[in-house]
Amino acid sequence: MDSLTPATSSQKEALLRRYGATGLSAMGPAMGPWNEVIATMLDHRSVRGYRPDPVPAGTLETMVAAAQSAATSSNMQWTTVIAVGDPAKKKALAEIAGNQKHIEQCPLYLCWVADMTRNGMISTEQKVEFETMPWLETFMVACIDVALAAQNAVVAAESLGLRTVYIGAMRNDPERVAKLLGLPRQSFVVFGLCVGYATAEGAGEVKPRLPQSIVVHHDAYDGDAKAAARKAYDGEMATFAARHEMQASTWTQRVLNRLGPIKSMNGRERMRAALAALGFEVR
Amino acid sequence: MDSLTPATSSQKEALLRRYGATGLSAMGPAMGPWNEVIATMLDHRSVRGYRPDPVPAGTLETMVAAAQSAATSSNMQWTTVIAVGDPAKKKALAEIAGNQKHIEQCPLYLCWVADMTRNGMISTEQKVEFETMPWLETFMVACIDVALAAQNAVVAAESLGLRTVYIGAMRNDPERVAKLLGLPRQSFVVFGLCVGYATAEGAGEVKPRLPQSIVVHHDAYDGDAKAAARKAYDGEMATFAARHEMQASTWTQRVLNRLGPIKSMNGRERMRAALAALGFEVR
Repeated sequence: MDSLTPATSSQKEALLRRYGATGLSAMGPAMGPWNEVIATMLDHRSVRGYRPDPVPAGTLETMVAAAQSAATSSNMQWTTVIAVGDPAKKKALAEIAGNQKHIEQCPLYLCWVADMTRNGMISTEQKVEFETMPWLETFMVACIDVALAAQNAVVAAESLGLRTVYIGAMRNDPERVAKLLGLPRQSFVVFGLCVGYATAEGAGEVKPRLPQSIVVHHDAYDGDAKAAARKAYDGEMATFAARHEMQASTWTQRVLNRLGPIKSMNGRERMRAALAALGFEVR
Repeated sequence: MDSLTPATSSQKEALLRRYGATGLSAMGPAMGPWNEVIATMLDHRSVRGYRPDPVPAGTLETMVAAAQSAATSSNMQWTTVIAVGDPAKKKALAEIAGNQKHIEQCPLYLCWVADMTRNGMISTEQKVEFETMPWLETFMVACIDVALAAQNAVVAAESLGLRTVYIGAMRNDPERVAKLLGLPRQSFVVFGLCVGYATAEGAGEVKPRLPQSIVVHHDAYDGDAKAAARKAYDGEMATFAARHEMQASTWTQRVLNRLGPIKSMNGRERMRAALAALGFEVR
């Protein structure tokens, strides 16, 4: 990979888009290593407007090969991918997700399943009790496995000029999603993923993130308030929000809106009950 | 990204390493799209032997920029990264992980924190109750956010010729890890990550995964046993295991060993109690 062309000229611009002027200046003049792989990731934005054009043949297979290449805890490979093409199912899934039309519009819609059924079948077949299955830890590992896999698929798609958006709202009603997709007991859709080519209006732009001074700590958690850094980020997000007519102006306000009232969970406070109904004890 | 050089010649070899001859032949002759980004991901292997050489200056900052560029649910940015350089702390963390020496050896060791403290501080500061915090769903979202971020960091590192391995065994004793790193309430190390240059012996090779015919479903979960495909994979893994003197020969046997006896969890069945002690209700 050392042969990849350095792209120093665009590195500063990419970091500027990702951190804003205040976040970038806080990083100092030194620039870390850089290449096209990293540039691809820095350019990520979630896209909610798709052209009807299909993805190139073999795109799903390439994305899945990337996904399966991610680390998987003890090689247990808990991930299953369901590609949903049936328009009626996509429509129903879009409704569950609060009418997110891009689920219907995108040419490739993937449901990422924490599949504890497949390995569980080995228990039945070999008549060996799997004592590790009912625990929160094992369920968490399955969800983390799925996330690592899906993120590789996202990077693969974006490297091909495609765009994506995760659909966490599949968890608004896990039981109905499971029924629509015919999931067996102990399988659960962690999230959906839209894949396709962005429309001009849907292309969006890179969203600024918290400065690294808040996110990276050394040797121990740094509990200092860093209120100044967060205020600077609030300013970056307010500028971004104004350009995109978003409701909440600052990040602080967005956190208040999203984490304050339970109604913003859209029913997902039912998760434990939903998982129990799907055969997960999460003890 | 369309300008990236196609690398068709190595594509078949990369897929062969990832799926073995039986898995590759089941994919048929058609090859999906391909580029250097995808080749980087397909070449992943977890590395447990590191040279003492430091990583280049700025590597951490570049990895974190990639990590923060991953999608984050509602832009809540639950991820904190603690870079652990203190040899005494690395030694203690290695012990918690069942004496994984690579934690001490690697030049860069990162603890990936589901940080619900930072956003929680906004609740205190603004005197607004965060009703969404005590739920399993919110904790899951934080862990998934962390996984998406970390996987981008891994891809960035590997694109720079570095190698990595996730350390799930930080969860063997979450309270002791939290104490060592001075975590406040409602922060939790999801996993560690070793980063560095592989030794010749540690470099390893790509591990075969389940064939795509088992992993990819269309429109609905496909419950057919696909016993033949799993048997073929058992053969691939037996060959791989023989080359690497691994104990379990087939994948089926490895699943039985890992998921059967509760002792293979190394105490992680305590996860709910550990999380409660760290201030997570996961209701």
